[in-house]
Amino acid sequence: MDSPAVAATTDFQAWSREVAAHVEGALAELLPPARNAPTRLHDAMRYSTLGGGKRVRAMLVFAAGEITGASTDRLRVAASSVEMVHAYSLIHDDLPCMDDDVLRRGKPTCHVEFDEATALLAGDALQSLAFQILAEYRLAPNAEAQLKMLQLFAAACGSRGMAGGQAIDLEAVGKSLTLTELEFMHILKTGALIRASVLMGAHCGTALGQSELDRLDRYAKCVGLAFQVIDDVLDEEADSVTLGKTAGKDKAAAKPTYTSLMGLPAAKRLAQELLSDALEAVAPFGGRARRLTEIADFIVHRGR
Amino acid sequence: MDSPAVAATTDFQAWSREVAAHVEGALAELLPPARNAPTRLHDAMRYSTLGGGKRVRAMLVFAAGEITGASTDRLRVAASSVEMVHAYSLIHDDLPCMDDDVLRRGKPTCHVEFDEATALLAGDALQSLAFQILAEYRLAPNAEAQLKMLQLFAAACGSRGMAGGQAIDLEAVGKSLTLTELEFMHILKTGALIRASVLMGAHCGTALGQSELDRLDRYAKCVGLAFQVIDDVLDEEADSVTLGKTAGKDKAAAKPTYTSLMGLPAAKRLAQELLSDALEAVAPFGGRARRLTEIADFIVHRGR
Repeated sequence: MDSPAVAATTDFQAWSREVAAHVEGALAELLPPARNAPTRLHDAMRYSTLGGGKRVRAMLVFAAGEITGASTDRLRVAASSVEMVHAYSLIHDDLPCMDDDVLRRGKPTCHVEFDEATALLAGDALQSLAFQILAEYRLAPNAEAQLKMLQLFAAACGSRGMAGGQAIDLEAVGKSLTLTELEFMHILKTGALIRASVLMGAHCGTALGQSELDRLDRYAKCVGLAFQVIDDVLDEEADSVTLGKTAGKDKAAAKPTYTSLMGLPAAKRLAQELLSDALEAVAPFGGRARRLTEIADFIVHRGR
Repeated sequence: MDSPAVAATTDFQAWSREVAAHVEGALAELLPPARNAPTRLHDAMRYSTLGGGKRVRAMLVFAAGEITGASTDRLRVAASSVEMVHAYSLIHDDLPCMDDDVLRRGKPTCHVEFDEATALLAGDALQSLAFQILAEYRLAPNAEAQLKMLQLFAAACGSRGMAGGQAIDLEAVGKSLTLTELEFMHILKTGALIRASVLMGAHCGTALGQSELDRLDRYAKCVGLAFQVIDDVLDEEADSVTLGKTAGKDKAAAKPTYTSLMGLPAAKRLAQELLSDALEAVAPFGGRARRLTEIADFIVHRGR
């Protein structure tokens, strides 16, 4: 018989596969069919959104939804909009004028598989579609709350969120950043969308009080940073074969990372501290925070 | 004393200057200050959105708002969101992987003034900001109606709207299109946002019945197409000096245009027919449609 720890892991893996299947199904429905004109654009949108990735953001939407008893129907739409924006950000991030990556999740990047202009427009159209479905499907208890959700999401995508973080990341190439500056960049670049995932998932269910929302926010901030710290750790340790994307790029481009600023052991300790903070933040939710707890643990202890 | 015709023109010019000033003021407020981090990104967003263009889409928002008695406070926010999306589409359209233009409104294009990556992200962030302000400011009579407005706007931006039209435009380079195919492209590429401008302006006031909305829709469709036909006519006639953007590009890139498909005289006649249709569609609104009528007339009879 499995030990309890193994059983828990197995159960979490089953749950995350279930979430991935929900989101895959929802995305396949919500994305325009590739046979509809403009076919090449729709093909590129589907190519870059379907069938890949760890779906960490979708898992966070579903896990936060467990705190507020949100329905699967709502969570799959909210998770799809987050995954669409994530996919668009990767497409644009991989373009020659940005990181110039040719591999993503072991497949050619969108502009390599299609062309640069199609990749640019596929990203643009995925962003529009994310907002379109958030306006179309009722997710929050009322229209007023849904507008708040949309506002929160749009802010997380924009110049004071994800797009802003990417801009700071670009400016940082070849420069030395302090840890505080590095943290500010990551809070925007990856943290904003992770935070939005958690809050949107929670907003799909019964309304929470401000102190509970603050707890979720603290959890999301810690998990978002831990995610990036571990990414840097894995980048330092990994090679192209296991990584499925061009490894060592950050180092080659002289991008500041947690490992380059603190060294590998200290970066690993920081990830552990962030994990503890994240778990502490959601501990008062008890059993309802089980999935959030498991995801935080998964993020910090994952390989590629 | 001015003749009535001259007085009307003067009055329309005064009105359009007033609308432009409203929108300029609103955009200056709604765009993040250039001194806020990330400064280069915010600078690029403001550079490409403020101080330029004919503001035709903003005029359409305000003119349609006169049909439903919408307040200026609401119209300036709706018009700003449309102008932000228009500015983002121009930034991306001018990129080297798209039209590769170096001049826009007589100024260096965004990627020339800044750099490609910043231009890409400025466009991305402008799209997010447009949705953010539409979710933040109350424009429609209730939250439910506002979500509908958002949905309509997002659809106009996406793969079955503006971004889709740009994709079809790209695929058309070097190909021969039929007039029907050319029309389909323009209905998406420029028509979708023009239609959204008219409907959003109207939605900022008292609710209209379906037959009235259909009239506005027909008006918008005709005006959007007329706009493009006249653009092709002016492109054929103009040269770089008066145009303020690189002239003859469409011809050089062998892009199909109305003038290349029908010839100059037939294209001019088509524009007149579209104008008549547009005016007929809004005639039942009487005096409330005065500005819509004037804009249609302005679009068809403008120079550069």
